[in-house]
Order: sequence, then structure tokens, then C-alpha cells
Amino acid sequence: MSGIAGIVDSRGVAYPLYYALHALQHRGQEAAGISTFDGRDLSLYKGPGQLSEVFNESVLAKLPGNVGIGQVLYTQKAHRGRPENIQPLKFSFQGHVLSITVSAALVQDNREALRTEYEGKGHIFSTTTNAELIAAMIAHELISGENAENSFVNAMRRLKGAYAGVAILDGVLYAFRDPLGTKPLCLGKLATGYIVASESVAIDTLSGMLIRDVVPGELVTITGDSVSGRQVLEADHRAFCVFEYVYTARPDSVIDGVLVYDARRKIGEKLAKNPVQADLVSPVPDSGTAFATGFADMSAIPYMEGLLKNRYVGRTFIMPAQSLRENAVRMKLNPVRRHVENKSVVLVDDSIVRGTTSLRIVEMVRDFGAAEVHMRIGSTPIIAPCYFGVDLPTREELIANGRSVEEIRKMIHATTLEYVSEEDLVDSVGIPGVDLCMACACGKYPLAIPGEPQCACRRVYPAKDN
Amino acid sequence: MSGIAGIVDSRGVAYPLYYALHALQHRGQEAAGISTFDGRDLSLYKGPGQLSEVFNESVLAKLPGNVGIGQVLYTQKAHRGRPENIQPLKFSFQGHVLSITVSAALVQDNREALRTEYEGKGHIFSTTTNAELIAAMIAHELISGENAENSFVNAMRRLKGAYAGVAILDGVLYAFRDPLGTKPLCLGKLATGYIVASESVAIDTLSGMLIRDVVPGELVTITGDSVSGRQVLEADHRAFCVFEYVYTARPDSVIDGVLVYDARRKIGEKLAKNPVQADLVSPVPDSGTAFATGFADMSAIPYMEGLLKNRYVGRTFIMPAQSLRENAVRMKLNPVRRHVENKSVVLVDDSIVRGTTSLRIVEMVRDFGAAEVHMRIGSTPIIAPCYFGVDLPTREELIANGRSVEEIRKMIHATTLEYVSEEDLVDSVGIPGVDLCMACACGKYPLAIPGEPQCACRRVYPAKDN
Amino acid sequence: MSGIAGIVDSRGVAYPLYYALHALQHRGQEAAGISTFDGRDLSLYKGPGQLSEVFNESVLAKLPGNVGIGQVLYTQKAHRGRPENIQPLKFSFQGHVLSITVSAALVQDNREALRTEYEGKGHIFSTTTNAELIAAMIAHELISGENAENSFVNAMRRLKGAYAGVAILDGVLYAFRDPLGTKPLCLGKLATGYIVASESVAIDTLSGMLIRDVVPGELVTITGDSVSGRQVLEADHRAFCVFEYVYTARPDSVIDGVLVYDARRKIGEKLAKNPVQADLVSPVPDSGTAFATGFADMSAIPYMEGLLKNRYVGRTFIMPAQSLRENAVRMKLNPVRRHVENKSVVLVDDSIVRGTTSLRIVEMVRDFGAAEVHMRIGSTPIIAPCYFGVDLPTREELIANGRSVEEIRKMIHATTLEYVSEEDLVDSVGIPGVDLCMACACGKYPLAIPGEPQCACRRVYPAKDN
Amino acid sequence: MSGIAGIVDSRGVAYPLYYALHALQHRGQEAAGISTFDGRDLSLYKGPGQLSEVFNESVLAKLPGNVGIGQVLYTQKAHRGRPENIQPLKFSFQGHVLSITVSAALVQDNREALRTEYEGKGHIFSTTTNAELIAAMIAHELISGENAENSFVNAMRRLKGAYAGVAILDGVLYAFRDPLGTKPLCLGKLATGYIVASESVAIDTLSGMLIRDVVPGELVTITGDSVSGRQVLEADHRAFCVFEYVYTARPDSVIDGVLVYDARRKIGEKLAKNPVQADLVSPVPDSGTAFATGFADMSAIPYMEGLLKNRYVGRTFIMPAQSLRENAVRMKLNPVRRHVENKSVVLVDDSIVRGTTSLRIVEMVRDFGAAEVHMRIGSTPIIAPCYFGVDLPTREELIANGRSVEEIRKMIHATTLEYVSEEDLVDSVGIPGVDLCMACACGKYPLAIPGEPQCACRRVYPAKDN
Repeated sequence: MSGIAGIVDSRGVAYPLYYALHALQHRGQEAAGISTFDGRDLSLYKGPGQLSEVFNESVLAKLPGNVGIGQVLYTQKAHRGRPENIQPLKFSFQGHVLSITVSAALVQDNREALRTEYEGKGHIFSTTTNAELIAAMIAHELISGENAENSFVNAMRRLKGAYAGVAILDGVLYAFRDPLGTKPLCLGKLATGYIVASESVAIDTLSGMLIRDVVPGELVTITGDSVSGRQVLEADHRAFCVFEYVYTARPDSVIDGVLVYDARRKIGEKLAKNPVQADLVSPVPDSGTAFATGFADMSAIPYMEGLLKNRYVGRTFIMPAQSLRENAVRMKLNPVRRHVENKSVVLVDDSIVRGTTSLRIVEMVRDFGAAEVHMRIGSTPIIAPCYFGVDLPTREELIANGRSVEEIRKMIHATTLEYVSEEDLVDSVGIPGVDLCMACACGKYPLAIPGEPQCACRRVYPAKDN
Repeated sequence: MSGIAGIVDSRGVAYPLYYALHALQHRGQEAAGISTFDGRDLSLYKGPGQLSEVFNESVLAKLPGNVGIGQVLYTQKAHRGRPENIQPLKFSFQGHVLSITVSAALVQDNREALRTEYEGKGHIFSTTTNAELIAAMIAHELISGENAENSFVNAMRRLKGAYAGVAILDGVLYAFRDPLGTKPLCLGKLATGYIVASESVAIDTLSGMLIRDVVPGELVTITGDSVSGRQVLEADHRAFCVFEYVYTARPDSVIDGVLVYDARRKIGEKLAKNPVQADLVSPVPDSGTAFATGFADMSAIPYMEGLLKNRYVGRTFIMPAQSLRENAVRMKLNPVRRHVENKSVVLVDDSIVRGTTSLRIVEMVRDFGAAEVHMRIGSTPIIAPCYFGVDLPTREELIANGRSVEEIRKMIHATTLEYVSEEDLVDSVGIPGVDLCMACACGKYPLAIPGEPQCACRRVYPAKDN
Repeated sequence: MSGIAGIVDSRGVAYPLYYALHALQHRGQEAAGISTFDGRDLSLYKGPGQLSEVFNESVLAKLPGNVGIGQVLYTQKAHRGRPENIQPLKFSFQGHVLSITVSAALVQDNREALRTEYEGKGHIFSTTTNAELIAAMIAHELISGENAENSFVNAMRRLKGAYAGVAILDGVLYAFRDPLGTKPLCLGKLATGYIVASESVAIDTLSGMLIRDVVPGELVTITGDSVSGRQVLEADHRAFCVFEYVYTARPDSVIDGVLVYDARRKIGEKLAKNPVQADLVSPVPDSGTAFATGFADMSAIPYMEGLLKNRYVGRTFIMPAQSLRENAVRMKLNPVRRHVENKSVVLVDDSIVRGTTSLRIVEMVRDFGAAEVHMRIGSTPIIAPCYFGVDLPTREELIANGRSVEEIRKMIHATTLEYVSEEDLVDSVGIPGVDLCMACACGKYPLAIPGEPQCACRRVYPAKDN
Repeated sequence: MSGIAGIVDSRGVAYPLYYALHALQHRGQEAAGISTFDGRDLSLYKGPGQLSEVFNESVLAKLPGNVGIGQVLYTQKAHRGRPENIQPLKFSFQGHVLSITVSAALVQDNREALRTEYEGKGHIFSTTTNAELIAAMIAHELISGENAENSFVNAMRRLKGAYAGVAILDGVLYAFRDPLGTKPLCLGKLATGYIVASESVAIDTLSGMLIRDVVPGELVTITGDSVSGRQVLEADHRAFCVFEYVYTARPDSVIDGVLVYDARRKIGEKLAKNPVQADLVSPVPDSGTAFATGFADMSAIPYMEGLLKNRYVGRTFIMPAQSLRENAVRMKLNPVRRHVENKSVVLVDDSIVRGTTSLRIVEMVRDFGAAEVHMRIGSTPIIAPCYFGVDLPTREELIANGRSVEEIRKMIHATTLEYVSEEDLVDSVGIPGVDLCMACACGKYPLAIPGEPQCACRRVYPAKDN
């Protein structure tokens, strides 16, 4: 997982990229980088750490130019001590300068075949990133005589997986998105330029206007004064990641036409269809908030925080007679005794992964005197790993894998437990189910994954007019 | 402003104090310190920075003992480069060892008279803290032959102002609170000990039980196996700080019998008495949340975030064509276009101080298309400075000073603006108005402040049975 | 141990104090602080860490004024987590402002008696520093009606031990030195002001001129345009610390009329009186350098480094099959094989304390093929602890305690071992032996130390003309 | 400039590499990295900063394996914010894993031609390092079917310039050195393994024995139990960098058979051939020390420090009425007044580059009263830039460029000034002049540099027996 952005702006791009990446920081806090092009030179600055640790005013001042890209990177990928994996990458070859950053999870056999092929073509890989692989593909097309746009087109046609990328090639900004649309990418208008970004909140933060999403399979080319899109790939159906709506994205983002907050709120409303006798509806903060407002509205049970969150980050130490995990949850969440004592509480959260945190939360609320704890979950049970970038544990660690809802309920000590149904989830998001990737919920994948069953596997083909 | 805690626990106090202070960190992030006593030596560790920057496991391991106190300090007091002001302080004299930390704002002439008196008695002050002044007073009593408890009693009798303090004197934990109760302090039971703390959330985080508040004017003495309270001072009325309920305290704290969340929620309900036609009720996150839930419930207008908060902290730089303040607010808050566009929005916040932030927020929501912005405020207009520790700007900078609500409304560009009435505020908190300090709202003070009018000034006298 | 400085300069003192303290940093790297007075306010900035970690240009800019003092502090005193002990201290009382820093080691019973007395007089101590004790004494004199100068005089008359101090009282700079002169302190002229400092290198670094040492027992008062000295105490003999000349001070300092480098060089010459057959004379860098140049010159054996020092500081880790101490010495010192292989090497060092480092060095040189290692030491055997501030280990850990030179030689595996004789040491320093403190060498002390024998104990009395 | 090392050791290599790199830290303090191979995986850890900032015990513990390489990097190359240039690099292709680090300065047209060629062969460069270029060459050889050793051989045959490199390819350690020997590289025996390193001090620090230098043009292959060398390239003459002996290397290193300290000492002796009347010989510390001991010995003028160095690093700020550069020199160096006042001083230093520092030093010594300052320089005048890695300024900034010695003398305010003659320099190093690179002194280069004259340009050809 990571957040990416690309900006063309006649007033300079370093500062706007910094602010755009700040709005995307929930997608990655382990490393950050920005590269800009000033018509002659490509400047690059990046490093490990949170965005505000990497960048300051004097660094931004050294990133001149009217076109640039940047990334915030999540922990899984940015291994401390392996700084070469931090993006954007920068390549130079035969008079070209290419800087690129992608948020990508390729299907393993596609990735391996391509790496082998390009190793065979003479590229030796210095990072483990997909960005380098895609850069090598683009570069080889260019070297073979293709023009810039077609180089991207040809590379896209050979990739299988989920990806969204931005690149500067010889001063032009390119943005591309996988044909199934699994990774989000949107396009916005700024006062004096354009922006592409993982989520629309990056556009908002610059007081820009969301124009539209980059269409799945589209390559967008942005110069100083024009934006042009070219449909490179089409698919019979999409595979928009349902987890973006439930978990990953910021609630104030609009992804593929859907305001994330509203999807969550509607899920909450659906969860309330099944009546429950309770005194209050409380979110598990902050993940359950939007869901809980919907639940409360629909059920007419008062919305009231039964748990509050400590905004300060602290180190967790093992105290006598307590486990570390217990301490960690207690440091972050605090039940409100007067709200839960002798009460029947509906707790709404976005998901249950391993179940350990849910168990701790239910127990904590019971310790503060709750008579009943009714757990409501805004996603369907997660039973299978994600091969497209969501950092889920192994199948064995997923509590819902091989267990009934009733079994899970017992394990987390809830009075009742309900997940949103797949139908209601799809309905709430408002995108046809056939256009969503719900592999983590159904165990079947929209692309051929070796050893995994396919579920409505999407056929991808070159766009007709190309 | 600061957060304090004192613990007696047979299993050691360093770790519990660390967790308790973590729960109080909203009261101070600029410095932190803990001192503990192991029956022979008093160990002290403190430093500038957030709690988790100052303490780690190896430091906590060097703080042995079953009795201890600690503090987290707010910026106003902890001047960088003046580390001697960081508390707890430690004093040794004539065989006694005293460690103390107080959250205190004394009336200026009382403070100056006492400093002069104790300078005259031979103490030369090495810090600018009230803690040192109070320590000097206690020490002088002891030196004059008073016993430990009476030393605290005699000191308390001479202090005028708002204070809450904890101290270890010769291995015994003492806690004391000003007779008007302006500063909060509560007492809790742990599995194997006792705790006093600024707010009950510190008790919660250790899975303890709130026993009661330290009574205004009370001195509490805690040893390994007993807690005893002695009423030192009485007052005809209290002056509980109304700002704790509206602004300072964590919503999950119970202060003087009132759950802060509920006070705020009730204020929200009161604000809704005056009908408004609107599409949604949104808090200004996070300060307005509890108020907004009450408003929504009472008004039956849907509760829905119209603004969302970026949880990540970033550095703010001046972008071309934008002011720094504008950037700072945009980095933190993001309007949700689909929630506010062409809508009539009720925005609920806790207070308006200078008015600049409110103006920025209203404008931002209007920029995202809101048709109407109805601002509702959970406190009465703030027109006067606080002499008891709340960090308000000068009278001149307070927007409500000398202006009507209508004038303020125009200045912040709101469609309508309503503050909670004093009556409704008092009613919501549930404490008789005569027992609240509302000086910042009415400009009259519960104690004699030179140059300021008095409002129901409280008379303080020694408790009868002493 | 610590380094102190005080400056009066019409062009401001913050920067000059910074540079002066930088020149004194060999006397303390654990904490640093500066206070300045601008005619109205006393500004103070201090913190843990090396000088350059504590201060930067923006901090120095906040220290206005034409009079100031500062200190760099050694590890023994500056306990991490006890920032209140970092100096200068600042006190305010009865209209006076006093900032003070001292490098002091008082005789224990004097210290305890004075603390008890001033505790009795009403001061409660908030630090464990002698600076606070001395400040309390000065303050009490002032409070009792003494004038400023006499307050210092009366305080000095009651102190027993080694001390050098600088203070700002109500805008005037005072400097004072113990009557035996154990702690160094000198006075210099700057282009537009005056400086007092622990060592003359601080004067040099500001391109000033050394005027003279502060006389033992003298109080110096410096205002903008005058320097006046008053002899407060006299002694029948001095007790200049011989370790300053051998170990503590920078070689380029002139202390009490003696250039430290020359004293060391002469010691080296004296050591060469006893002939030895050798191929080269090498210092143990850097401590033995000046000694070795004298030895080489006198013996006509070539001066040539047989060991070289790595200037970079590194962390030491335990490697397989090696001890940590072994690694630590190897990281810092490297024998030059071609200089020592099959050679007879004279190694010159300043002292042997525990003997472990000397053993490691001799063994290392032997491992690199040296045929003979003749160790020559620029101090007499150290057999007793220092009560005046030199950080020596306990008597039991001192290798020379209770052992003959021959026994020590065997323990450190040297071919021969010679210490400078007491007579030659005294002769080299050029100060009469009766005016030197050599307690660590002879085990007898110049002041009455409980449980220790006295050696030529000096009688101190008020200066005649006072 | 950088320092490199490679180790094979059956007891693990992470710790020994750390210590070896610590011994080489004078060659680079801006970044550091280590990679190790454990028979299956290649672990890599690197980052910006000094060695001890990058590595700690827990990091070293994550670098398992019995073969490894590492580098410390100098500022010129390690651009902050360009972490991808930090070495070692790691490449994977077609089943091979290659980790490599080189200290290399290739002739520009060779570098460009090769980059273009390998770009044409399909490699797109992600760093600006020569290490990546050389890795690409080796990889292409492997991919074309060459065996490992020949891949290195073929790469070496195409490189023109100065280089020394170490690499791990599929678990085997390779070391290679340019045919002219411009970059140093030596081979040592450890108790249970082997080491190659830039300088022999890295061997010393591990208590190993220097076996020999890697022969210019040699490829050394090291496995767990064998070392084999293969002469890949020969040259009619060498071009050992004379600056290593004068400036770059640590004095305790033996490079190509010459102990650096001895070369410097002999240069000092040669400088003394021309008699001068003086009272003392002083080094400019630390760079002039070894030279000065030789001068003193030969001239029979006493060796005595006239300047001393402050070992502590500080920030330099501009003081009123002083320039920053002035402050910077004064912070670091302090003249010893009693040694220089009214004296005739011989100051010995290694080189004069821009002349500004020399001027400051001479003036400083004069300010402290020196009657005469006789400057003696251990290198010949530097008149031309280095294309092989020594960080010299542009021709225009070199004081000796286009100026006579007399003109330079006047500019630095010296009484007399003498440089060592080229003949004496060569004689002192003890390597035939034709085998030394003295381009910075003579302006003619041992390899064809576009726009520069050639001076005894060396012919390089494949070694006969290959």
C-alpha cells in the first residue's frame, strides 16, 4: 500500500506535492519522496520516515520545476536499511530521464516472468520494486524506438495485477491505472494546473476540483496546458477493491464516483435492518464512526461514544500482571463507564481480522459494566489473503477462515455478532458486485492466482480504438 | 495547565505512572517527569518533550518504589532551555525528602506576597514554579516543628488560587486541592493500591475504579494500606472551572461527578432548542463531536461529518498565493463536498476564541458549496482572560470582547450563530451556577483579582472541625 | 569537573561565551548552559548534551546582554534525567537576581554542615549542586543587609574545599577562587571587555590576552569598564592540583603561570635522565604527546608514533572470541607495525589508573612485534582518591595502591616501567611542592578529610587587609 | 573518495566489517552500508550518516553470513535525499545475486561510452554510481554465458580510470583493482578468514596480518578456504596516487609496500635539507605531524607544538567583527603563545590548496607574537584538478595555479615558504616517479583526459598469461 500523486502546475510543484502527500499519509508513513523536473534537470529527494521528517522548507526549495511526482510508502515495502526501494525512482538512459512511482501488486507469475524477460534483455534489477520493473519495460520500449506514449501503452498491456502509477518522462507527466481499477487514481484541476492522486482528498487539500477518476486501463498524459486520456486496456468487468471503501481510504475521499463516508454510512444503515434492543450505538473509534452514524440513524438508537480514543502515541511496556497487547489496546481506547455500565451496547467496527483486538475491546467494555455487547461489522467475514496489496495476515491467522459467525461470536465474547451481508455491502457501495474485488471475503480472485480459485475472473483486452 | 498523578502500589509505581500520565497527555505535551520513593531513596527522572520521548523501559526500570508522582506539562510553563522548571521537583532539607508537582495558578498578589515572605525566611528561589513556592512553605512548617500533615494544612491555608498537587514527603503520598475546586483531582482504587490524578481517565487506563473526587479544600494522605482525607478549607461556594467541561478535559473523564461527554452532549441538546432548518449536523472535529451528537439527537437533523480531520501531523509551509494560517487549517481539516454542497449545514464547535479559525472553517465549508452554515457554540462568549491556568489570549484578541453575537456572526461569515446560554450551560453541566467559575464568560472573578470585578466572590475559611 | 567562563563585553556575550565554552569542552561534555543579563532581564538557556547539541544560532540570539556566564559539565555530575543540576542556576529573591555556576568540590563535613545550616535558615535545596549551596549563602548575606561584594566575601570565608565560580548578581560579574588555588581560574582582556575562565585557552580562542590568574582566595568584580580584585582569603601555602598539569588541562593552557605543555615536556625530559636503550620514543596518543617530545629531545632517541589514534568515535560491540574492552582499545588505537616490530619502544603516557588500559596497550604493541616495551609515566603512582573533583576510582581499583613499581610492571607486561619521581614532577611544574596538591600520589590531603591523613595541611585565614 | 572492505570469515562477517569500516572512516563519513551472504540470502543494510549512526548491535545481528562487503562514503557522492547511491548495491538477475561496492573514478568518455552501451543493451540506470555501471557489465557477461570470474575479467578490461572494488557474486568474494593502482587495495589474513580493504589499518584493527597489496590489474577471488589472484591487466607503468601518501591515507597504513607515516617523515627530512634558523618545528595538527617529526629530527630544531587542536566539534557562528572562516579556524586550532612569542617558528603542513586556511594559520601564529613563520609543505604545489577521485577545487581556486612560490608566500604572509621538490617527494615515497600519479602537481595525466595534456601516459594491456 502506498499513496501517490503527480502534479503539473505553472507556479511550481514541490509545495503542492508536499501537501497532497500529507493528505495521503494514511496510505503510508514509512518513507516519502518527491521528484520534480524543471525543463532541464530532474531533482529527487526521498528518505525513510514520515513525510514531515523527510521534508522541510529548505529541501522543498531544492525541488524546482512545474512537473513532479511523489509517494508516501507503507511499512511492508520500505525496509529500514534498504533505502533504494524508496520511491520515486529515477532512471536515465540514452538521453531520456524517467522518474516513476507506482502503487502496484502484480500477479506473481506475471511479475516473475517479466523480471526474467527484462533480465534477459539486459536489465539488472537493483531494487525489489515493481516500479523498477515497469520502468525497465517502458525504457525498453523507448530504446526499441517506440514513442513515449506507446512505451507506456505497451508496458501496461503486459502487466497483470493491481497498479496505479505516475511518471515523469522527459518532462511530461503520465498517469496510468490497471484495467480492473483495483487501485484508485483520480484526476483533478488546480487553479493553475492539474493533479493525479490516489485519493480525491489530495485534490481537496489544494482547493482543487475532482474532474473524474482515471478510468481503469487508461493512460493519462498531462502537459502544462492539456490533459489527454487514452484507453489502453478494457475489461469485461472491473475489480474495484471493496476494502478501499470499508477500510483503506479516507472517508472524505470520492473513489470511482462513491464518497467513501456514504458507503460506510449506508453499510451501517443496512446493519441496522436486523433489529436489536440496545441503549446506544457506539463506534469503535475511529474506524467504525461512519458506519455507526448510519446504524444509529436507521435504528433510532442514540449515537453515543461508548469508547474514546487517546490521540497521543505512546510506547507500550509490559506492566506486572498484564500482557503487552492488553496494555496496547488500553493505552489507545478507553470505555466510558457511564455510557456502558448496565447498558446494552451496539459496537460498530469496520472489520475483524485476527479477532484478538475485537476480543480485547469487547472484554474491556464488559469490564466497564456493559450488560450486552452487540458487535456489528461493516465488512463481510475476511477469509482469504489479498494478492493485490492489502496487508492481511496468512489464512491461518484470519479468525473467519473456517469458522461460522457463531463461532467467531463466542471467540470474541460478544452477545451477538453480525457482519454486513455481501449483498448489502455491494448495495451500499453502489457499484455492481461483478465490478468489485471481494476476494478477501469470498476466497475467489478476479485474476488467475496460482493455487487459488477464480471468482468471476475478469477478462482484460486491448481497448478497441487502439 | 498540566496533568498530575500520584500512585501508591505494592507492585511498583513507575509503569502505572507512565500509563496514567499517558492518559493525561492532552493536558501537557512539552515536558514530563516521574519521581518514585523506594523506602530509602527518592529517584527522579524528567526532561523536555512528549512523555514517550522522555521515558523508555530502561528509564522506568531505574525508578523503583511503591510510591510515586508524575506530571505532564503544557507549553506555557515548560520553556525550552529552562529545564529546572520541569516537575516533579525534589527537595531535601534537615533529613526530609520532598518531591512535589502541582498544577497551580495562584492569585498574583498572593503569589508575590508568599514569595517575598519566604525569600525573607531564607529561601532563594531557583525556579519560577508555584511548586517550589508551595514546597518552601511546607518545608518551613516542618522545620518549625509541625508534623507532616499539618505542614501541608498550613500551607494550603495560605494559598489563594487554583491548584491541585501531589507530593511525596518522607515516603507518604499527599494530594491536595484548592478550596474552590477550580483544578480537578480525583481518587481511585487500583488492584493493589491507590491513585490520585487530574482526571478519571488515568484511573480507567489502569483498570482501576474511581472512588470519588478529592473534595475541594481537602488534603488526602495515602500510605500503602490506607487513604485518609482531611477537610482543610471550606468555601461558601465552589468555583469549578466550566472550561474543563467544555474544552480542557477528555470527554470520557468524570469530574466532580459529571461525565464530561454528557455535559457536552446536553449542551448540544440545549443548542437545538432553537429550531434551525438544516440538512445535517456536523461537528468541527474533534472538539465539537459530543456537542453535535446531542444537537442531532434533539433536532432530529442527521448527524454526519461535514468536515473530516487528518490525523497526521505535518509541517506547514507557505505556498505561493496562500497564507500560512490558511494552509495550516487546510492541512488538518477537510470539508466533505458531497455532504455540504448545496446543503444547509449546522456546524457545532466548543468555543470561539480569536475567531480566526472559525472564519477559516466557515469559509472552507462555503468554498465546498455549502448554501448555509449555521454555527453553534458549546460555550458562552469568551470575553475575559483566565487567571487560573487556561491559556487564553489578551482581552483585545478575544473576538467576543465588546462585540454582539450578530457582529461576531458577520466576522466569521456564518449564516446564523448561536452560543449556548449561560443558563443552559449551567443546566447541562448539572452543577449549580454559583459553584462554577465562569469568569471568562462573565468577566467577574470568584477571587479578588486586582483590577478585575468580582462575581459572586467565594469566601474561603478553615474547615470547622480543624 | 567542569569548565566555567564569565564575560563582560559591550558587543554582547552570548557568542563569545559559546566559543569560550567550546575551548573548555575537554572539561565537560555532558551538559552546557549560558545565562546573560541585559540590564533588565536575566536570560538562561541550558540542557543536556554536548555544547553544540544544546546551542545553535537561534538560541544564542535569545541571550541578549553584555554580561554573562556559562558552564560545560562533566558526566559525574550531570545525571541524565536530573536537568535541575545543569548550570548556571538562576535565583531570584527580594528584588535580586543571581545566576551562578561553580566548579566545586567541598570537604564533605563543610558541605553537610553548611547545607544543614542553610536548611535551618529556611532554604530548601532543589538540586544537589554546590552552586545552590553557595548561592543560598550569598543570598542570605544579601538578605541580612550585606552589600553584594561582602556577600561573596562572607560566603567564601565559610567554604572549605576546592572551588572556582562565576556569578552575575544584579548585573555585575563576580569570579572567585578557593584560597588554596586547587581549581584554576584566570582573567583575560578582550577587545571590548573582560573574561574569566577555567583555562587560558578560552581567552585565546577570543583573541584576548591573559592578564593573570585569579589569585587563590580572591574575589574579582567586573563591570563594563573596570576590574577590581579583593583578596578575601589567604593561606600559608597553596594546593594547586598537580593533575591539572599532568592530565586535566589542555596543553596550551597557562595555569598559575605555567604553560601546561612545558610542564609535561619537562617531565618527559626528567624521565629520560634514566638511560634506556631504545629505537624510538612514542607517545600513547594523545595524552602522552607532550611528555614524549621532552623524552625524545633529552634522550636523543627518535620521536616517532608507534601507536596512532582513530579520530572517529564508534560504538563498541562484542565480537566473537574477543572481549568488549579489547575491542574498545583496538578501535581507538592502532600500533604501527613497521615502527614497533623487532624494536625496543619507549611508550610515554601521562598516568596509570586502573592499569587495564596500559596492559592492553602494552600487549597490543607486543602483538605487533615489539621486542621491548619501556613504559614511562608522567605522574607519580596514583594511590589515593581525590576529594576535590578529579574522577578517580576507589582505592581498591587503583593499581598502584599497595603495589611496588615492579609489581605494576609485571601486571602491565612492560619490559621496564618508570614513573616520574615526586621531586622531578614538582621541579618540572616549577611550583614549590608545598604549594601543590599531590594527595592522589601521597595519600595525604591539604585539607582535613575525615578518615584520611593530612599532608602539609594548609592553614587558611582571612586576608589581612580585610 | 570512499573506503571499502570485503571479508570472508567462518565466524561471521558483520561485526568484523563494522570494525574494518570504522578503521577506514577517514575515507568517508556521509553514508555507510554492509551486505552479507549466508549461503542462501543476501542481506543488505545501509543509510545516510556516520557508520555508528547507521549501525547498531541489533542491525548487525540481522546481517548473517560468512562473506560480506561494506563501504563508508564521502560527502561528494552521497547526496542527502539520494539514498539510492549509498553502497553496497544489490542486484538480482537470472538466478544470480550480486552485491558490489566500488571506489571508482572512471575517465569521463569511458564512463559515458559504457553507460550508453549498456543502456543500449537494455540496462536502465537507477543510480549515478560507477558501481551500477560495473555491475551491469558483469551481469551482462554472466547473462551472455561467461563464468563468474571471466565476467569480472571482461568488465575490468573495458574500464578506464581509477577503481578498487569488492563484490559478492553468488556467495564468492571478488576484489579488483585498476591496472595503474591509483586506488589502494590490500589483502590480509584473519584468524579464521581473509579480508580485502582500502587500507591496511582495517586489517590491523581485526588483529590480522597484511599479506600483500592487491596487484594493480589483479582480480582476487576469495572463498572460505582459498585466495586466488589472477592478473587481468598489466601496464607499462603504474600511477599510484601520490596524494594517498601525502594526504588521504592514515599514517599507520602500508600502501603498496610503503608505510605512509615513513613517507611523510622522510619528506619532512628532505624539507629540512635547506637550512633554516628557527627555535622550534611545529606541525599544523594533525595533518603535518609525521612530516614535522622528520623535519625536527633532521634539522635538530626542537619538535614542539606551536599550535594545538581542539578535538571537539562545534558549530561555527559569525561573531560581531569577525568573519565566519576566521571563527572556524580559531575554534579548531590554538597557537601556544609561549612557544611562538618572539620565536622563529617552522610550521609544517601537508599541502596548500586554496591558501585561505594557510593564511589564517600564519596570521594567527603571528598574532600570538611569532617573529618569523617558516612554512614547509609536504607536497609539491597543487596546480591541477584530480579526475580520479580526490576532491580538489577548480583550477581557478588553486592558489598555486599560475603563481610562483614567492607569490604564494606573500599571499599567505609567511616569512619563507618551501614545498618539497618533486624529486624529494618521489624519493621519500620510495616508488619510482614513473609509477606515481602526480597529475595534481604537474598538470599532466597518466590517462587520456579530454582537454588535458598527458604526462607519461600509461599503456594498459591484457595480462600476458590470460
